[in-house]
Amino acid sequence: MSSEGRIEEFELIARVFAPLAAGQPFAKGLIDDAAVISPEMGHDLVVTTDTLSAGIHFRDDDPPETVAARALAANVSDLAAMGAMPVGYTLAIAAPAGLSIEWYEAFANRLAAEQERYGIGLLGGDTTSMHGGPSLTITAIGQVPQGRAILRSTGREGDDLWVTGTIGDAALGLDILESRLKPAAAPDGESLTARFVSPVARIGVVGLLQRHATSAIDVSDGLLSDIGHLAAASAVAAMVDQDQVPVSPAARRLLEQPGMGGRSLWRRLVTGGDDYEVVFTAATADRAAIEADAQSLDFPVSRIGRLVAKGGEIADDLVVVRDASGAIVHIDGPHGYRHFAD
Amino acid sequence: MSSEGRIEEFELIARVFAPLAAGQPFAKGLIDDAAVISPEMGHDLVVTTDTLSAGIHFRDDDPPETVAARALAANVSDLAAMGAMPVGYTLAIAAPAGLSIEWYEAFANRLAAEQERYGIGLLGGDTTSMHGGPSLTITAIGQVPQGRAILRSTGREGDDLWVTGTIGDAALGLDILESRLKPAAAPDGESLTARFVSPVARIGVVGLLQRHATSAIDVSDGLLSDIGHLAAASAVAAMVDQDQVPVSPAARRLLEQPGMGGRSLWRRLVTGGDDYEVVFTAATADRAAIEADAQSLDFPVSRIGRLVAKGGEIADDLVVVRDASGAIVHIDGPHGYRHFAD
Repeated sequence: MSSEGRIEEFELIARVFAPLAAGQPFAKGLIDDAAVISPEMGHDLVVTTDTLSAGIHFRDDDPPETVAARALAANVSDLAAMGAMPVGYTLAIAAPAGLSIEWYEAFANRLAAEQERYGIGLLGGDTTSMHGGPSLTITAIGQVPQGRAILRSTGREGDDLWVTGTIGDAALGLDILESRLKPAAAPDGESLTARFVSPVARIGVVGLLQRHATSAIDVSDGLLSDIGHLAAASAVAAMVDQDQVPVSPAARRLLEQPGMGGRSLWRRLVTGGDDYEVVFTAATADRAAIEADAQSLDFPVSRIGRLVAKGGEIADDLVVVRDASGAIVHIDGPHGYRHFAD
Repeated sequence: MSSEGRIEEFELIARVFAPLAAGQPFAKGLIDDAAVISPEMGHDLVVTTDTLSAGIHFRDDDPPETVAARALAANVSDLAAMGAMPVGYTLAIAAPAGLSIEWYEAFANRLAAEQERYGIGLLGGDTTSMHGGPSLTITAIGQVPQGRAILRSTGREGDDLWVTGTIGDAALGLDILESRLKPAAAPDGESLTARFVSPVARIGVVGLLQRHATSAIDVSDGLLSDIGHLAAASAVAAMVDQDQVPVSPAARRLLEQPGMGGRSLWRRLVTGGDDYEVVFTAATADRAAIEADAQSLDFPVSRIGRLVAKGGEIADDLVVVRDASGAIVHIDGPHGYRHFAD
C-alpha cells in the first residue's frame, strides 16, 4: 500500500474496474452512475451487502487477492443460502489516497477470476478516498424464482439440520497464518490456509436448497453461532451431534494429534467462522432425496442434527451439542465473532 | 462521537435500524442476510452505490442528520437521473467502535424522515467497526419500465440542454458553513446552507424525463463537470448560456452585491457541486411540451443550452459557456470535485 503509482479516480475506473464489467450488459460499461438489471420473468431479486475493512476484517498487510476473494465469497454466500443464483455486484472502495495502483490491479485481477467462478460481473460502484481503510462494501444481487427465497426464519421443529462441505478449516488456516498454530503441527497447513485466503461460496447447493430446504443460513460467524441465528429466527432450538459435524482430513489429523488439545481445538472449529458453508433444514422425509441430490455436487452434504422445541431438556440454550453417548458437550464462551465486541 | 452509549451490533440493528425496515415487506425485518425484491411486471431495476466517508465527504463534526440526508439524496438522485423511481436501499456503516448510540439514533431518525419523503424503506445492510470512519455506503435500487432507463451516453447533437431547480446554492451554503462567506454578506444564508445540509433528490422529474429526455445525469460534482461527463459519454460537446443557468434569489442577491467578486462567485456556483439537480437533454421539438409538463412540478426546469458537434468553433473543449453577447466565458481550473485529486 505505497503511495507509488498514485492514480486518479476516473483513470482507476477506466483502467482497473471497467474490464470487470466487460461482457456484463447490465453495467453499461460503468459509464452511468447506475446499472440496469432486467430480472428474468417470474423471478425475484435478492440483495445483500457486506463490508470488509482493514484492521477489522482483514489485516493491513493481507494480499489484495485474499481481500478480493473473501469480499466476494462473503456476499455470494449470503445469496446462495437464500437459494438465489448470483447475477452481479456493485463495489464501493473507500481507500487511503496513497493506495497503489499495484494494489488495485491485484485486487481487480482476483475479482475477475472470482467473477468467472460465479458467472457474474461488476455492475457499478464508487471509488473514493478516505482517512483510514481501505474499506470495501460489496452489494451482491441474485435471482430466485418468485416467492422462493429461502429464509432463516422458516425452520420447523423436527426438521433435520444439514451443512455443506467441512467446518473449521478457515479458522485453523487463520491460526496458522497468525502463528497460533505451528506449521509443524499442521502438516497439511496449506489446505487449511487456502480455505481462509481463497474461500469459495457454495452456489452449487442452490438447486438442492430450492428442492428441499425449509430454511437456511450461511456459516460466516461460526457454525454454532449461525445455527443459533437460524434457531432464534425460527423460534426453535437446535441439537447438534458432535460426531456428525463434517471435518476435513487435515483438520481431523490435527484433532487427533496428542497434545493439540482436541476439545479446545474442536471448539475453535465450530465457532471460528469464515467457512462460507451453508446450513439448512429439511423435513426428515427428504433425507434420501437430499443424499441422492448431493451425489452430483463436488462437496459433501452432512446431516448434523435437528431442530427441537425450545425449553425442556435443553433449558434456555438455543443450540446444544451432544457427543456420541448423548451427553451434552459444553462449549464455553461466545459462539462466534461479534463486531464491536473487541 | 463519544464512546458513551456503546452498543453491540445486534442491539444496534434491532433498536436503531430495524424500525427503518418496518412496513418494507422486501426487507424481511432485517432478520435475513439479504432482502428480496419483486419487481413490478415489465420493469427493470436500477442499482447505484455511493460512499460518504468522514473527513472526505463530510466533516467529523457534521451532524449525523446532515450525513443521513446527504447520503440518501446522493443515491436517490442517481436513480432519478436515470428515470427510475426509488424502491429501497441497503446501508453499510463502517464506524469507529466508540461511535455513540446517540449518533446512530440521530442518523437513523433522519433516514426515517428522508425515506418517507422518497417513499422507500431500508432493505438491509451491514454494521461493522473500523479504524477510522465512519464510512457509509448506500446502495439504492429503483424501478424503471423495461428498456427505459435513461443513460448519459445517448444525448444527440442539436438537443437542448435542460436543468432542474437552481444551481450553486449548496456550494454557497458550504462556503457559509466553512466561513469562507460571511453571514453578513449572505443575508439569506439559511436558505443556502439548507441546500447543503438537507439536499432533496428530484424524484418529481422522473415522469418528465421518461416522456422527453434523450439523456440525463445528476449534478453532484458540479454543473459544468457533470455536463462534461454527459457530453463525453454522448461523444458531443455542450454550449451553456451563462444567463440561462438558474440561480436562486439568495444566490442572485450575492452575485449582484458590490465587492462579492461576481465572476469568481459565478464560477463557484457552476463548479461547486452537491446540487442534486438533474441535467437532461431533449429534442428541440419537445420544448413546449417540456415547459407545459414542468408546470405541475414544485421546482423550475430551465433550458440552459444545447449539445453541439465536437471540434469546430469550440475546439477541444467539452463544455463552453457563452455570455449574453455570445462571447465565450472562460472558467479557469477544474470544473468539479475529483476524488484523489487533493
